[in-house]
Amino acid sequence: MNATYESCIKACLECLEACNHCFDACLQEDVKMMADCIRMDRDCAEICAFAVKAMQTNSPFVKEICQLCADICDACGNECKKHDHNHCQRCAEACFKCAEECRKMVA
Amino acid sequence: MNATYESCIKACLECLEACNHCFDACLQEDVKMMADCIRMDRDCAEICAFAVKAMQTNSPFVKEICQLCADICDACGNECKKHDHNHCQRCAEACFKCAEECRKMVA
Amino acid sequence: MNATYESCIKACLECLEACNHCFDACLQEDVKMMADCIRMDRDCAEICAFAVKAMQTNSPFVKEICQLCADICDACGNECKKHDHNHCQRCAEACFKCAEECRKMVA
Amino acid sequence: MNATYESCIKACLECLEACNHCFDACLQEDVKMMADCIRMDRDCAEICAFAVKAMQTNSPFVKEICQLCADICDACGNECKKHDHNHCQRCAEACFKCAEECRKMVA
Repeated sequence: MNATYESCIKACLECLEACNHCFDACLQEDVKMMADCIRMDRDCAEICAFAVKAMQTNSPFVKEICQLCADICDACGNECKKHDHNHCQRCAEACFKCAEECRKMVA
Repeated sequence: MNATYESCIKACLECLEACNHCFDACLQEDVKMMADCIRMDRDCAEICAFAVKAMQTNSPFVKEICQLCADICDACGNECKKHDHNHCQRCAEACFKCAEECRKMVA
Repeated sequence: MNATYESCIKACLECLEACNHCFDACLQEDVKMMADCIRMDRDCAEICAFAVKAMQTNSPFVKEICQLCADICDACGNECKKHDHNHCQRCAEACFKCAEECRKMVA
Repeated sequence: MNATYESCIKACLECLEACNHCFDACLQEDVKMMADCIRMDRDCAEICAFAVKAMQTNSPFVKEICQLCADICDACGNECKKHDHNHCQRCAEACFKCAEECRKMVA
């Protein structure tokens, strides 16, 4: 693994996992209330996967992609933290951590 | 566009669009009942996008990917057709059409 | 299809197709010279697919995603237009058209 | 993380990383000779990412997706092991390991 990207890739993979788990779990809750969360979990999981791929392939667009990842992670984290479910709280945490690592990488 | 794949790509793109629209619309309904539909819409949209890419890049795995696409489209269509919403009925139709085109392509 | 997004989705799908075709065709050329083109074709196809999904699902991040799509399309178009191959020239054209539509949509 | 899927997810993530790294490295080699490897690395990375998502979201299609992942990993591994480059040899290893874990999971 490219050492420069190591902690950012790790944070993206943990966020991807948290978002996918939260997506699955929200679909087993009162889905109406969780609709925005479900929607953002899907988008956030996808941009995290895209950021991982960009870092792993040395994409020329790695900074732009990680910048967008940071923005989407922050928004997803803000939505998730509104909900008391464990999976939402853990997802919010993973999102904020990932946003922070992406910003560090871009800087 | 590769002519061999033309009608299959078209069906996949229409199915992708129908699934993504249905995903969005289901999240605005009484979502509890739509949970399986939301879940399958996401998976089905992704395999359709993967099949399109496989055909457009002449992937050596194009038949295996389109076979899986046909299977997932059938299952998604069967779930969607249970629901009376227009977006679900239209999605079911697009799924069955896509499954048929994928099977023709694989044969 | 969401009418607001219609021409932007169309441009993204044409760019996706052109990039995937160019990726495949470049791999059959004297590839050394085409390495950057191959790399960008992959990234550009992926962000176009992501933008299509964002528009089709009414993602809350649709503007940010289409902005990134415009930037990547411009870079990919600039690389492709350096090469005389038909697939590269057509890809460049599709990229610039897509960048333009994405910018219009974001504005 | 869903415990049932834990070792399979791990193997998919390692294969994804190996394929993406191999894709990048092959584009810096004599690309002509590596064309099939580059092509398969892209497909294999994508199916691994799709399998990870399927497991993390408890997709109803998890077995079918992991079966396809196993087949593509085997083919990618067979292509990679033909080449002496370190990145190809390591990629082949990750592919075969991933194929094995996917088959175990499906069984």
